[in-house]
Amino acid sequence: MYKIQELQEIIKKEIANIRFPEQPRALYEPIEYTLDLGGKRLRPLLALMATDLFDGDIKDCIPAAMGIEIFHNFTLLHDDIMDNAPIRRGKPTVYRKWNSNVAILSGDTMFAEAYKAVSLTKPALLPPVLDVFNQTAIEVCEGQQYDMNFETMNQVSIPEYMEMIRLKTAVLIACSLKAGALIAGAKEADLQNIYDFGIHIGLAFQLKDDFLDSFGDEEVFGKKTGGDIFENKKTFLYLKALELAKGKDLEDLKHYYSATDFDFNEKVEAVKKIFLKLGVDKITEERMEEYYKLAISNLENLSPDSEKKSEFVSFARKLIHRDK
Amino acid sequence: MYKIQELQEIIKKEIANIRFPEQPRALYEPIEYTLDLGGKRLRPLLALMATDLFDGDIKDCIPAAMGIEIFHNFTLLHDDIMDNAPIRRGKPTVYRKWNSNVAILSGDTMFAEAYKAVSLTKPALLPPVLDVFNQTAIEVCEGQQYDMNFETMNQVSIPEYMEMIRLKTAVLIACSLKAGALIAGAKEADLQNIYDFGIHIGLAFQLKDDFLDSFGDEEVFGKKTGGDIFENKKTFLYLKALELAKGKDLEDLKHYYSATDFDFNEKVEAVKKIFLKLGVDKITEERMEEYYKLAISNLENLSPDSEKKSEFVSFARKLIHRDK
Repeated sequence: MYKIQELQEIIKKEIANIRFPEQPRALYEPIEYTLDLGGKRLRPLLALMATDLFDGDIKDCIPAAMGIEIFHNFTLLHDDIMDNAPIRRGKPTVYRKWNSNVAILSGDTMFAEAYKAVSLTKPALLPPVLDVFNQTAIEVCEGQQYDMNFETMNQVSIPEYMEMIRLKTAVLIACSLKAGALIAGAKEADLQNIYDFGIHIGLAFQLKDDFLDSFGDEEVFGKKTGGDIFENKKTFLYLKALELAKGKDLEDLKHYYSATDFDFNEKVEAVKKIFLKLGVDKITEERMEEYYKLAISNLENLSPDSEKKSEFVSFARKLIHRDK
Repeated sequence: MYKIQELQEIIKKEIANIRFPEQPRALYEPIEYTLDLGGKRLRPLLALMATDLFDGDIKDCIPAAMGIEIFHNFTLLHDDIMDNAPIRRGKPTVYRKWNSNVAILSGDTMFAEAYKAVSLTKPALLPPVLDVFNQTAIEVCEGQQYDMNFETMNQVSIPEYMEMIRLKTAVLIACSLKAGALIAGAKEADLQNIYDFGIHIGLAFQLKDDFLDSFGDEEVFGKKTGGDIFENKKTFLYLKALELAKGKDLEDLKHYYSATDFDFNEKVEAVKKIFLKLGVDKITEERMEEYYKLAISNLENLSPDSEKKSEFVSFARKLIHRDK
């Protein structure tokens, strides 16, 4: 059984080894720039971990793992255009550094490169791996569409929000795990459980993201908190607060979320105060804990012995209890 | 053996039968709109014709044929954003009718849907079909990048231009034919010849497009000619003219291609006059004929008997000798 750090080293090396054609530069330079930005490389790691868990050969999973990571980076590249995001991982986004045409086309090329990598999966396993990858790619687009829809919607319910983050974030995590398990030849029941594990971890992961953006320790988090509040983002915290707030609190919330020309600190502090008063921070953590428990019960149902699964449990716990 | 019209009927029905999810509407409405715009459906037709030529069951080719047509329409959708194109097939382009975010994301979804369709190819044939499809998807993006590069380049050579249209147009035509042949179980030599046939027909097809945009009969062509000239597009005709023109003609050409604020008719007439004087119309037709002959010799090398191939020959002839 591989240690997580070993797998991370393998992934790092494999990503560094990805080669694109030299020409046209205008197309491939932004792709190399994007893949060099780094990131957690969470998805390929989960894919390899799943192959290893079911006693597969992790080498067989490398193409799918790389394909999923390239796909993930492609979605960030296109999302940044749609969201007008200036910065990604501390560097200018592709559409800002170059322009949106470059970002559209190099993103499209990355999407094709992602499929090219996934297609290197052993022929016998290719149809089921493509099945989950195709469906996931479509769902991720749907998630992004719902996210954009929410920006102009007056009312978004918590279930609608959870469905959006399931599509936008959780399904790709679940897909990574399922692809890894498929490649190891896991049984149908295991495939379903590892997929569901991924969904639950993915939902918890995104709630943690929401939580940290408001309540993270800036020193540890590594970036300024309060961005979501300042930009009126309809996160779990805000939607829950809107559900619970009454009277003056509700009025203030609505007031602050009606514009973006407030003083940053004034707005963020005022909204966080309301969040804390309503206990939205605790509710978010409780909800995360619920998904975490569901994820653990998915793991318990898997056929490998509990010693092998313990790596997954501790990794899942770290993902939820991370501070950055 | 199927008649072309029969295949066209089958394609029409299959495209009409494509179903997308109901929600989110903002994502799927532009996709349905795009596929409903019609077009020649040339690529799926060529795919089915190739399967039929090599005695395959055309039903086996339907998924790949649909996938290729969806992919082709996706590229048009994204190209229209990059080219600021207001009209496509007589209707507003997606990015004009909605906005560019909608066009980016519904395009991405179409790309995934294209792969979903192609992936329904019989498992034993899936790896080689994906192989040519992946490579083609990447090359089409490269072609679009070169096309955009040309806009700001001072000098573009004829070989560079031909390579651009090979990537942007010909490889997808060749891919359609090769996928169809693969699905019929054609031999390696036949696969190479049918692919090359596609490249040569594709190049001739695009030269015809360039030719018709300047010298087409508007009544038959169905749209106003002269658009490429007016927009300073570096077509085969223009690049050839630039190569041949001397003195006042060269000066005039450069003058007219230096701006877009000329009177439409004045500019188009003046440039066409230079084209005719230099014999660029004839040179373009000769070049088309060369590619046509190469295409026919590719066909002659194919293993099916000449009676079966005659359908291809007459279809190729029609594509080149079309007036619209």
